[in-house]
Amino acid sequence: MPGTATSAEGLAGTPADQHTIRDHNLAIVLHHVFREGQSSRARIAAETGLNKTTVSSLVAELIERRLLRDGELQHSGTVGRPAVAVELDGDVYVAIGMEVNVEYIAWAVVDLRSRMRDHEIIAVDNRTRDPREVLTDLAGRVIAILPDLDEHGLVPIAANLALPGLIDAARSSVLVAPNLGWEDVPAGAILQDLFAAHGLPVLVDNEANLAALAEHRIGAGQGLDSFIHVSGEVGVGAGVIVDGRLYRGALGFGGELGHLTLNPDGPLCSCGARGCLETYVGLPAMLRRAGLDPDEVLATAATNGVAPADQLLAAAQSGDADILAALDETGHMLGIALASAVNLLSPQAIVLGGIFTNLHPWLAPGIEEELAQRVLAARLRAIRVIPSDLQLAAAVRGAAALALTQVLGNPATAA
Amino acid sequence: MPGTATSAEGLAGTPADQHTIRDHNLAIVLHHVFREGQSSRARIAAETGLNKTTVSSLVAELIERRLLRDGELQHSGTVGRPAVAVELDGDVYVAIGMEVNVEYIAWAVVDLRSRMRDHEIIAVDNRTRDPREVLTDLAGRVIAILPDLDEHGLVPIAANLALPGLIDAARSSVLVAPNLGWEDVPAGAILQDLFAAHGLPVLVDNEANLAALAEHRIGAGQGLDSFIHVSGEVGVGAGVIVDGRLYRGALGFGGELGHLTLNPDGPLCSCGARGCLETYVGLPAMLRRAGLDPDEVLATAATNGVAPADQLLAAAQSGDADILAALDETGHMLGIALASAVNLLSPQAIVLGGIFTNLHPWLAPGIEEELAQRVLAARLRAIRVIPSDLQLAAAVRGAAALALTQVLGNPATAA
Repeated sequence: MPGTATSAEGLAGTPADQHTIRDHNLAIVLHHVFREGQSSRARIAAETGLNKTTVSSLVAELIERRLLRDGELQHSGTVGRPAVAVELDGDVYVAIGMEVNVEYIAWAVVDLRSRMRDHEIIAVDNRTRDPREVLTDLAGRVIAILPDLDEHGLVPIAANLALPGLIDAARSSVLVAPNLGWEDVPAGAILQDLFAAHGLPVLVDNEANLAALAEHRIGAGQGLDSFIHVSGEVGVGAGVIVDGRLYRGALGFGGELGHLTLNPDGPLCSCGARGCLETYVGLPAMLRRAGLDPDEVLATAATNGVAPADQLLAAAQSGDADILAALDETGHMLGIALASAVNLLSPQAIVLGGIFTNLHPWLAPGIEEELAQRVLAARLRAIRVIPSDLQLAAAVRGAAALALTQVLGNPATAA
Repeated sequence: MPGTATSAEGLAGTPADQHTIRDHNLAIVLHHVFREGQSSRARIAAETGLNKTTVSSLVAELIERRLLRDGELQHSGTVGRPAVAVELDGDVYVAIGMEVNVEYIAWAVVDLRSRMRDHEIIAVDNRTRDPREVLTDLAGRVIAILPDLDEHGLVPIAANLALPGLIDAARSSVLVAPNLGWEDVPAGAILQDLFAAHGLPVLVDNEANLAALAEHRIGAGQGLDSFIHVSGEVGVGAGVIVDGRLYRGALGFGGELGHLTLNPDGPLCSCGARGCLETYVGLPAMLRRAGLDPDEVLATAATNGVAPADQLLAAAQSGDADILAALDETGHMLGIALASAVNLLSPQAIVLGGIFTNLHPWLAPGIEEELAQRVLAARLRAIRVIPSDLQLAAAVRGAAALALTQVLGNPATAA
C-alpha cells in the first residue's frame, strides 16, 4: 500500500533500482483503482503524478497479470473523447479466509473486488476436540471446494486463519487461546502441510484484529480513522484501528479488551485472572444472566445448527423483561470497560461486532450511558456506538483481506 | 523530524521545489547530528546519502544559523586525515517549559543540547487561586529571568505550558482540568498576551503527554519504541509512546489513565464519575492511606516548601509498617489498572513518573504482581516497570522539547 511503501528516494538517500520503482508504481496504480472503484488512464496519470505513457504501460502489465481489466466507457463532464475505464478484475484471484472459534468453524472465499464468493459457518463445539482435529476438519472442508473454484476460473492465492487467542504472527503459531484451551499450537505449520499439495500459503492472525481490519476496509468502519471493534464471542476481544491502520502494540498482543479487569475479586477467567470483562459479558455469561444454560445452548447449536447468538437474539426479541434487564446489565458492564479503553485511546467510535452486532439495540443504551458518565472527554465529544456490518463474517473476511492486501501492495507477486 | 518530513518525491509524484528540498535536507543533517551527538561532514554524507559538497554547504548554513558549531578533531580508527566534528550549538537557542499543577508551578530553560539552564519548582496550592492569577504569577516569574538569559547570550524561542487536563491543542486552550477546577480557560491566549512584549510564542499541552515525550527523548524511555509513562500527582495521567511517537488518539484526548474505572461504585472522582483510578492512587488518596491528612500536607508544602512527594518519601523511608502496607496496596491498585492498559496497548515498558518515581521501590512489586497475574501475554513476555529519569522536571522539559523539536525539524525557522 502506498502509505507503507518505500518511496524511490528514501531519507537515507539510497537510490532504488528501476525494477523496484516499477513495482512500486504498479502498486500505486492498482491502489488508486482499488480506492476509486474504477478510473481512466488519464485520471490515474493526473492523480498519481505519473506520466501518461508510464501509466499506459503499467495498466497494460496489470491487465496482463489479470489484476485489472477494461471496463465501461467513461464520459467526462466536459468536451473530449470518452475514455475507457479500468477496474479491478474480480474474476480471477480470490483469497480464502478461515476461522476457528469456540463454537464454530467458518470460511469465506473473497475476490479482489471484496465480494464473497462463498461463506460457510458450521456450529461445532471445538473445546471437545483436539487442535489438530479441528484444523484438519476445517482444511478438509476448504480443500473440498477448490475444484469448484477452479471450474469457475478462480485462482486462490492464500488460505489464512483467524483465531481467538495470542498469535505469534511471525511464526503463524498460537501461543495461547484460553477459551479453546489451546496452548503452543503451530496452527500455521499444520495448515501449511495440509494445503501444501494445493500450493496455498497460510498466515494465522488474531480474529479480533482481522475482524477490525475487515470492518475498516469494507464494513462499518469505512471512512473512520480510529475505532475500537469489539468481537463478542465466548471470549471478548478487540481490534483497534489507529490512524487508519491496525494497532497491534509493540509486543503484538494489543486489543485484549476481554481481559480488562472489571472487578479484581470477580469470577475466575479462562486466562487464570479474576474479574476479567469476558467473565461478565462473554456469550456464556450473557446466556447465564438471561436464564439460559450455556452448555445446553452450545450443545443445541452443534446438533440443530441454530447459532447461540440467534438463540439469544430470539430471546431478546421476545421482549421478556428478565432478558431485557440481563442485556441492559451486560451493556452497562461492557460500557464500563469500554469507557476505560476510550479514556486511554480516544477513538472516534466503538463498533460492536460478533454476537454483539445483532444485540446492539439492547446493549448500546447501557454502553452509551457509561461512556457519557466515565469518559473524561465525553462532555466534549460523544463517542458513537455502532453495530458492525460484517457480523460473524468479519474475521474470515479480514483473513482473506490480509492476502488480498498483499497482492494490491505488491502486484508483481501475482501470476 | 525525518520520520514525518515529506520526501522530495512524494507518492503523488508532485515535484518539490528547490527551496523545500534544501529545507528538508537541512533538517536531515541537523537531526543526524542531534541523534549522534557529534559527527563529521564525511560521516554525515555517508549516512544520509547526500553528497559531500551539499553537506558542506548545509553545515555552513546551520553554523551561520547558530544551530551547529565546529567541535573537536575526530580521529577515525583507520588511516586518513582527522576530520573536524560538528555538534549542536547549545549556547544560543533555548526553550522555556512551564507547568501549572495542582500543588506547584514550575519552569525550566532548556538548550538545544537538552541541558537545563534553569529549573524552579515552587510549591503553591493552585486550587485556591483564579486561573488568570496563576498564569500571571507564573509568566511574571519567567519574564523576570529573561534579562539574565539575554546577558548570557541565550535566545529563547518559545514559552510552552504543561497542564494536567484536557487541552484543545489547536487553540492552546484548557477544556477541563478537574483537579485544578479549571474549565474552558484560554490559557494559551492569556500567556500569549503576557509574553507578547517579549516576542515569545506559547503552546499549551497536556502535562502527562509532555512528560512522556521528554522521557522518550532524553529520559528513561530512550531507546524504547513503546511505553506508558504514568504521571503521578494529585491526579494521575499517562502519556503513551507508540512506534516512537506520542499517541494522542483520534480525538486528541488519549492517555487518561487516571479515569480508568477500578470500581464502578467507588469514591466520587473530581471528573464526576465513580471509582476512577486516581481516587485510589492519586496523591491525596496515597496520603490518606498512609495516615496523613492531604490538606495539611499540601498546606505545609505551600508554607515550608517541602514537596508532598518528599514528605511521602520520608514516611516510606522511615520503614513504618502501616506506611509500607499502604504503598503496597497502592502498587496493587495501580497494577490492576495498568494491567488493563497493557492488555489493550501491549507496550514494552511502564515508566513511573511524577511522585511515583521515588516511590518506585515500594510500588513496583505490587504492580508487577498484578501485571503477571492479569496481562494475558505476561507469561510470554514480562513488562518492565521502571522509574522515570526526569521526575518532576519531565513535563517542563517536554514543554521545552516541543519548541526545540520544531527548530530541529525546520531549521529555516531559526534566526
